[in-house]
Amino acid sequence: MRLYQNRTMLVVCCPAIGYFFHAHVPEETALMSHIEPRFCSQCGSDQIVNRIPDGDDHLRDVCGACGHIHYFNPKIVVGALPIWEEKILLCKRAIEPRYGKWTLPAGFMEEQETLEEGALRETLEEAGARIVLTGLYTVISLPDISQVYMLYRANLSDLDFAPGRESLQARLFAADEIPWDELAFRTISLTLKHYLADCASGAFPVRNEILRHPARGVAG
Amino acid sequence: MRLYQNRTMLVVCCPAIGYFFHAHVPEETALMSHIEPRFCSQCGSDQIVNRIPDGDDHLRDVCGACGHIHYFNPKIVVGALPIWEEKILLCKRAIEPRYGKWTLPAGFMEEQETLEEGALRETLEEAGARIVLTGLYTVISLPDISQVYMLYRANLSDLDFAPGRESLQARLFAADEIPWDELAFRTISLTLKHYLADCASGAFPVRNEILRHPARGVAG
Repeated sequence: MRLYQNRTMLVVCCPAIGYFFHAHVPEETALMSHIEPRFCSQCGSDQIVNRIPDGDDHLRDVCGACGHIHYFNPKIVVGALPIWEEKILLCKRAIEPRYGKWTLPAGFMEEQETLEEGALRETLEEAGARIVLTGLYTVISLPDISQVYMLYRANLSDLDFAPGRESLQARLFAADEIPWDELAFRTISLTLKHYLADCASGAFPVRNEILRHPARGVAG
Repeated sequence: MRLYQNRTMLVVCCPAIGYFFHAHVPEETALMSHIEPRFCSQCGSDQIVNRIPDGDDHLRDVCGACGHIHYFNPKIVVGALPIWEEKILLCKRAIEPRYGKWTLPAGFMEEQETLEEGALRETLEEAGARIVLTGLYTVISLPDISQVYMLYRANLSDLDFAPGRESLQARLFAADEIPWDELAFRTISLTLKHYLADCASGAFPVRNEILRHPARGVAG
């Protein structure tokens, strides 16, 4: 059985019984894993077999023609928790998933950059804001969607910020103004909860957490 | 101009002048980045164009036939620093790169697992050892090869360990026995140096670092 995802669509195929169906699914689930290759990226063959290669112990998409193994690994979502005079900068999303919901500036880390550069870039792209990082803060595994969130605490350099093309709005929220019911992702609410709790003590140790899909239980 | 890598081989192609060459390169450099697609993974076309898609600001491998964008992102290398009575468990590598050099058990994080599960799996695979994690310890960006190392401190559960198929040997080293000149990677020596220094104070905060290619200067 194979699973394909396409934003909010889940496609399940079982060639053995010639059956497939597709269904709309919760957006967080829809982001699971990678897009399956249908053709070999090295020789163009359509003979992709999902099997455990010799000397390996994980299922991989292996080309039956040239033998190329297509590896896929978890993605890092990197971002920041920008602060200005005890207020937190949030962005209202202008894109799916979670259009219209509030988030910290964050996105997929790019090749050839450091985590720190990724956090600065995402904050500039999504909130038009310049920041100074003050330390790695939350490290959150999301095994169901093969992502690891890595968010930095940061200070806003100035108030000259404006929503980027992926944001409808960027604004500062005092602790008692945070729109808890309108936050985009559980990683964001978890990070904000830790931050507000840690503000009381003034110590901000790195928080290493696990968030599993609610349907599977066990939120770490 | 395009770069392809194949373990210790670097291939440079410049179609504009019909020129290409290949050369053996240092192994750490050879591991840079991803394997470029030559065919579209979704439609099989060979019309892959390296360009910035609309609404993006990074070069991507875009299919000229179906429009599919092939995204590539940094990989996480996850592992552990296993301790038994103040001694550190190292593995002697049985694979390239760095065959015969000593390392902490670590490897590419797999999809659908947590960082913690990855650290346990790699330690079992490479050293045949069972551990109890005691905390995330080093988080090291390697932008030149698009990797992020994430290593956990850990206690060995017992002395029943043995080298896995990727290791020639697994053994415990006291602080004054560490083979500094025979370590496989700079991430490993940096982690061990931090650990020995932190043992003096008994506090092990998460260490967030950057290691750039020596030729490019600036080791963070």
